[in-house]
Amino acid sequence: MGKRNLYLTNTAVDDACRIYMDALKGVLKLSYEKIPVKDSLHRVTRHAVYAKYSSPLFNAAAMDGVGVITARTKGASEKNPVTLREGEDYIAIDTGDPVTMPFDAVIMAEDLIETADRSIKIMEAAVPWQHIRPIGEDIVAGEMILPGRHKIRPIDIGVLLSAGITEIEVVKIPTVAIYPTGTEMIEPEQEPSGAEIIESNSQMFAGMVTEAGGKAVRFPPVIDDYQLIKKTISEGIRHYDMVIINAGSSAGREDYTVHILKELGTVLVHGVAIKPGKPVILAIVDNKPVIGLPGYPVSAYIGFENFVLPVLSFLTDTIQQDNKKVEAIISRRIVSNLKHKEYIRVKVGRVEDKLVAAPLARGAGAAMSLVRADGFCVIEQNQEGIEAGEKISVELYRDAEEIENTLVLIGSHDLILDVLSDMMPNLYKNLFLSSTHIGSLGGLMSLGRGEAHMAPVHLLDEETGEYNVAYLRRVCKEPMALIKGVGRIQGLMVKKGNPKSITGLSDLINCSYINRQRGAGTRILLDYKLKELAISPESINGYDREAATHMAVAASVSSDSADTGMGILSAARALNLDFIEICMEEYDFAIPVRYLELPGVQSFIRIIQSDNFKKSLEELGGYRYEQIGKVIFI
Amino acid sequence: MGKRNLYLTNTAVDDACRIYMDALKGVLKLSYEKIPVKDSLHRVTRHAVYAKYSSPLFNAAAMDGVGVITARTKGASEKNPVTLREGEDYIAIDTGDPVTMPFDAVIMAEDLIETADRSIKIMEAAVPWQHIRPIGEDIVAGEMILPGRHKIRPIDIGVLLSAGITEIEVVKIPTVAIYPTGTEMIEPEQEPSGAEIIESNSQMFAGMVTEAGGKAVRFPPVIDDYQLIKKTISEGIRHYDMVIINAGSSAGREDYTVHILKELGTVLVHGVAIKPGKPVILAIVDNKPVIGLPGYPVSAYIGFENFVLPVLSFLTDTIQQDNKKVEAIISRRIVSNLKHKEYIRVKVGRVEDKLVAAPLARGAGAAMSLVRADGFCVIEQNQEGIEAGEKISVELYRDAEEIENTLVLIGSHDLILDVLSDMMPNLYKNLFLSSTHIGSLGGLMSLGRGEAHMAPVHLLDEETGEYNVAYLRRVCKEPMALIKGVGRIQGLMVKKGNPKSITGLSDLINCSYINRQRGAGTRILLDYKLKELAISPESINGYDREAATHMAVAASVSSDSADTGMGILSAARALNLDFIEICMEEYDFAIPVRYLELPGVQSFIRIIQSDNFKKSLEELGGYRYEQIGKVIFI
Repeated sequence: MGKRNLYLTNTAVDDACRIYMDALKGVLKLSYEKIPVKDSLHRVTRHAVYAKYSSPLFNAAAMDGVGVITARTKGASEKNPVTLREGEDYIAIDTGDPVTMPFDAVIMAEDLIETADRSIKIMEAAVPWQHIRPIGEDIVAGEMILPGRHKIRPIDIGVLLSAGITEIEVVKIPTVAIYPTGTEMIEPEQEPSGAEIIESNSQMFAGMVTEAGGKAVRFPPVIDDYQLIKKTISEGIRHYDMVIINAGSSAGREDYTVHILKELGTVLVHGVAIKPGKPVILAIVDNKPVIGLPGYPVSAYIGFENFVLPVLSFLTDTIQQDNKKVEAIISRRIVSNLKHKEYIRVKVGRVEDKLVAAPLARGAGAAMSLVRADGFCVIEQNQEGIEAGEKISVELYRDAEEIENTLVLIGSHDLILDVLSDMMPNLYKNLFLSSTHIGSLGGLMSLGRGEAHMAPVHLLDEETGEYNVAYLRRVCKEPMALIKGVGRIQGLMVKKGNPKSITGLSDLINCSYINRQRGAGTRILLDYKLKELAISPESINGYDREAATHMAVAASVSSDSADTGMGILSAARALNLDFIEICMEEYDFAIPVRYLELPGVQSFIRIIQSDNFKKSLEELGGYRYEQIGKVIFI
Repeated sequence: MGKRNLYLTNTAVDDACRIYMDALKGVLKLSYEKIPVKDSLHRVTRHAVYAKYSSPLFNAAAMDGVGVITARTKGASEKNPVTLREGEDYIAIDTGDPVTMPFDAVIMAEDLIETADRSIKIMEAAVPWQHIRPIGEDIVAGEMILPGRHKIRPIDIGVLLSAGITEIEVVKIPTVAIYPTGTEMIEPEQEPSGAEIIESNSQMFAGMVTEAGGKAVRFPPVIDDYQLIKKTISEGIRHYDMVIINAGSSAGREDYTVHILKELGTVLVHGVAIKPGKPVILAIVDNKPVIGLPGYPVSAYIGFENFVLPVLSFLTDTIQQDNKKVEAIISRRIVSNLKHKEYIRVKVGRVEDKLVAAPLARGAGAAMSLVRADGFCVIEQNQEGIEAGEKISVELYRDAEEIENTLVLIGSHDLILDVLSDMMPNLYKNLFLSSTHIGSLGGLMSLGRGEAHMAPVHLLDEETGEYNVAYLRRVCKEPMALIKGVGRIQGLMVKKGNPKSITGLSDLINCSYINRQRGAGTRILLDYKLKELAISPESINGYDREAATHMAVAASVSSDSADTGMGILSAARALNLDFIEICMEEYDFAIPVRYLELPGVQSFIRIIQSDNFKKSLEELGGYRYEQIGKVIFI
């Protein structure tokens, strides 16, 4: 079964970083270059910079008016104004003009009376040097303007230039070669087929390198050929300051990277106690850093943050900016492992006085969870997990102010939530919508714990056949309301043409099914309908196979991985599936009464009642909206 | 005296901004363009973006191992392992490989035993779909990836590409033409002479435009010619999205801008109740924003922040990022005026549990104070000022963490402080030195109020002729120590060749003098020496003229604006002046005993005792350092 690297080490994150940086600091040298000051924005100074000229360069008028000789203004008063003649006793002067001997003071234009014969009258004597900016008042030649290792800001550029400095020595921008590897990888512009995978990590890395002050040079994917990869890395080392190799760092059959790096240089660490991201390689070849990052996007991202950023911070001679940290309450229990430090992606929202962090998907492949996340919470290696309600520290990478202005929805999933989260900040600047999908019942529980403002729900009461109201009465402890949402059609999604000829729920026993997770309204609906039809769940092949959203169910059907699954019409339409209607259900927004008056909630109601939003519903299909936005007190 | 615009309005800042933005929003239109996703870092999406492909695109192995048919694994246990044959019962598989029917589960490499004949043995039955990432687990085709008006991050690029999106519609980068004006302005590369001024604001603006997401196009200075400026602005309007005109917006003789803008379009505001920065012009010409900013660098900067940034935020369709705000204690009283909102530049430092803001120079021309400042505190228009010790809100533009790691020095000025602030972060990453210069006595007062860690002092006791120790005993209320600094030569600075033949202090009565501010050690020394010589201050022409630093005194002498002034040898050397020695004085660092053990203070002592630092002292000249770094308890 080929060459496998089953035996990665499990070095603690901090140790791995220290071992690597210590080794690098012994061999890395910073490079510098001289560039024009006007092009130096955000570059880092090598040495302290001293002024060449003073500013102002001469004694300058600080006001518009006239330059005078103070001796000739003596005795002036309202009763006995003194008359001064142009050229002899005064000169007209504007702000910034030089004041030279014998003139030694400035009188403001407002404080003098012009007469017809170009003379002026003044009512007050001048004090020597009044309204004059002495030479060097701002900057004195020889004075230090900027220290060394300083990141140049716009104001620094202004002052450097006015002090006569037009060139400056700065740290060279480090160049980083990025090599994706893998025979199955194709470029994003190509159409994928069979087992091909679109290579996208390298472009993410390029962006991260740019943000860290480096220059990224990204190469097309290299196929899994030992000699070719070896040649590629050697080339990279020759021409760039740092090399990143993506994928090929785990223990799979075709993972050559670590062997190649051992041949070319020194591998200091292979395998870090981090999740996701374990199979990281930290190596030095020809005194240059070479880092192998795993192929899963989340692992790649976390590996980059932990190991590439410190190197770039060293090469750019800047202090690494940590993400902003906030304290939040974790919304549900997380179990972690003593074997590694774990990065959990979370959505963060402010509900009343609490900042709440809701964990998102934990898979290393779940790149969308990185897009959706507001930050990470880190479970240290020596920690077994966190209990729901405990305080945790969250590293934010979304703006803290945005989080304060976000309406938090936790509950059932529907495509209209995407549309709403898009519309909201477009209509109300500084107002955002965050939705996390854990099913209807889970949403009501979150409301109860004060973790969300609203819960989108579609809960059918088995006794009464009534939607939502009964559940709210039963489950919630405080005064509640329902903001009416949409009626939506639930049904069975099947492949185009309905190859298994499914006509309704009674056909489920003859085909493979994909279900929703426990607590999802759609699963409660299925159970209710199965009971009506007296079909036992055990008789359905795939009843225990769970997908988390309508779209995930649609995707399984679309890819033949299941014959059918229950979901909403809009999801079936999005993936071009056929659809067998089962029933119309009510998808509403449960909300504690005390949140109804929040400005965000009021805006939310205005948006769902808008013509624009109704147009979107028509486009998605399968929705009714006669009651939308109506508030019902439970 | 020509055309003056004495009658600026005094519109409140918020009103001015609202009037202007309301008018602009009626006429401005955003532009969009399609660009490759890989080039879209930090660009802003126009619409929501939906996935084209699912990810994974197929049911994919989540582990390295083998794909199996679950039915054939039934009954496997440690006692009764099941043997599977390659090709028939299993296929070798790596992470990410597709798993296709009839294979419906993955067994990890760790959980199987390879046998010689390419068969494998398993000890546990597989569960259907185990270790398989179902199609669309991460992203489902049709799902929304990004909302509209979203600033694209590296992770977004990765996900967009893996979802099959290679082009994206984004907000066009707005172009901003920047025109400096003024006949006296020269380019930084030119050597200034006479009344010429180096034009530098425009390059500062260019940096600020870049940081705000715009593209700056900077032009060389335009001379003060009405028709020429008018033609230039018209050209700018035709080719760029926004125009900034610098200088020419106050009420001076040659300030044509407002007249031209009234001719070309509409001037909505001329004159804002802001200090510094009053003479701002906010205009619209051909539906495009044209802003005139004052020429003083600090006024220009504050005008840009208040009026250009909101327009750029609109044109880039992004939310304007406010500076981070912190609460601090103001170190001294500030009087402001009800006529305007005032921006006071401050240095901010953490001393024990207090964040202290020390006000810097307030002049509109003091660009260096912007470089040195850590932030602004704003005194609202309806506020008359702040008392020392009051809490104020500071808008930081330096990193908050740097501020926490800064050793705060307030007291007397010496050139060695610049050298130290440069050396400190070079030797101790994350350790910074901030020094504010208000004279020796002022420094001791600051220590007493808990605003600084150390005070550099050189205070001669008139009774004993002893330096520093006596003053510390008399002024300080808590146990103090002196970290010995340098012996430095004080003397009279005179022009090269000593044209007035000054030989000592007794010659001061025959020439013009420039003094230091009250409380400065150098002034106390002068007074002490004058008393010895029985010379009365009134007999000295210029005794009341004050400069704030040794270098400012040197600059005045160098420019003939005074014949002589007292100061240190290194300042005289820096500006190539002759120097008449008066005496050697002791310049030390006063410190409360309880701060001595701070890590920053310990590093400070190590630095001043280093050979590198002593080398710098030799280069500056005029210093002795036998006792440097020695700690004396008072």
